[in-house]
Amino acid sequence: MNSLRGSDGSLPMDVFRYYLIQDTKYVREMQKAVIEAASKAPLNEAIDVLTAVFSNVERGAEVHERLFRDLSITEEEVNNTGFNLVNYAYTRHLHYYASLGWPQFLAAWAPCMWGGYHEIGKYVVGTGNAIFNAWAEFYASSDYWSRVEAILRTLDKYGGVTPDMERAFKDSVNFEIMFWEASLRKDPTILY
Amino acid sequence: MNSLRGSDGSLPMDVFRYYLIQDTKYVREMQKAVIEAASKAPLNEAIDVLTAVFSNVERGAEVHERLFRDLSITEEEVNNTGFNLVNYAYTRHLHYYASLGWPQFLAAWAPCMWGGYHEIGKYVVGTGNAIFNAWAEFYASSDYWSRVEAILRTLDKYGGVTPDMERAFKDSVNFEIMFWEASLRKDPTILY
Repeated sequence: MNSLRGSDGSLPMDVFRYYLIQDTKYVREMQKAVIEAASKAPLNEAIDVLTAVFSNVERGAEVHERLFRDLSITEEEVNNTGFNLVNYAYTRHLHYYASLGWPQFLAAWAPCMWGGYHEIGKYVVGTGNAIFNAWAEFYASSDYWSRVEAILRTLDKYGGVTPDMERAFKDSVNFEIMFWEASLRKDPTILY
Repeated sequence: MNSLRGSDGSLPMDVFRYYLIQDTKYVREMQKAVIEAASKAPLNEAIDVLTAVFSNVERGAEVHERLFRDLSITEEEVNNTGFNLVNYAYTRHLHYYASLGWPQFLAAWAPCMWGGYHEIGKYVVGTGNAIFNAWAEFYASSDYWSRVEAILRTLDKYGGVTPDMERAFKDSVNFEIMFWEASLRKDPTILY
């Protein structure tokens, strides 16, 4: 088990490379879904979340470019690689909840930003591998945390969690776990 | 004519107050329309424009709060005041073009940001009236200009101007003129 943990730097680089391409495809769909959901939100909440998520978008892009350079990943490769089944299902799930409404989408989105990335970023940061560390530092940063905070404070306004929101959240937690597992086994990328 | 120009500070304050309430109602609809249109845009363009427009949104809010305080305008008054006919037509026009598509919306939106505010801001800035000057400094600022630039560079990507876009742009120029004129005569505010 331990041999596959990013925190000791022993994750095989081809697994990370596979993951990074799938993640890039995920993030684009996620960002589209955020804007789609925001178009259905109360204006002050839409602006709060969009500002938090997109304000320092160039910082994430810089880390990304650096990792792409280190791993010789090009835009073309990302575009020509399909989604694996979990990634396809997860991104359609985000689009589906964006079409249902704003609080439903926030519930579906939170596990990715909060657990999937910020908590894991904090866990991995400090690893001996410079590539994994550059990745982790971004997600562990206070900059990234302020994005998560915007989602959580907006969710908090919706006092009661509806059955819709609970299902969205739980499914996304499962999708997060399945997403990492699919990367570990380098699932075939068959969906476009 | 000259007696009604903001640049010599002689605009009656009740006219400015009337205008500011209508403008506040306009901006909210405009921001909703921006997000709605962005949900139909190529992702990189959506992020570019949303970031430019909403990144320093708190700067505009500060100026606004200051003006609201000086003129004793409350949120309740804004909410309880209807739109005048021009404002109602103009904001529905923005929503309509947002529903048609992204480049159409950008064409409909540009006259407000570019001419209606940045150019007029530069014209009025330096006026002796402190209230008008606070207003003008915001729109004349490089911060505000960077919002306009994001719209213009995105529009420039759409080389050819379609008949749709041309009509949207021209109508908005006329709406801008009508909007100021409706404020000058303090049109009845009858639409909700």
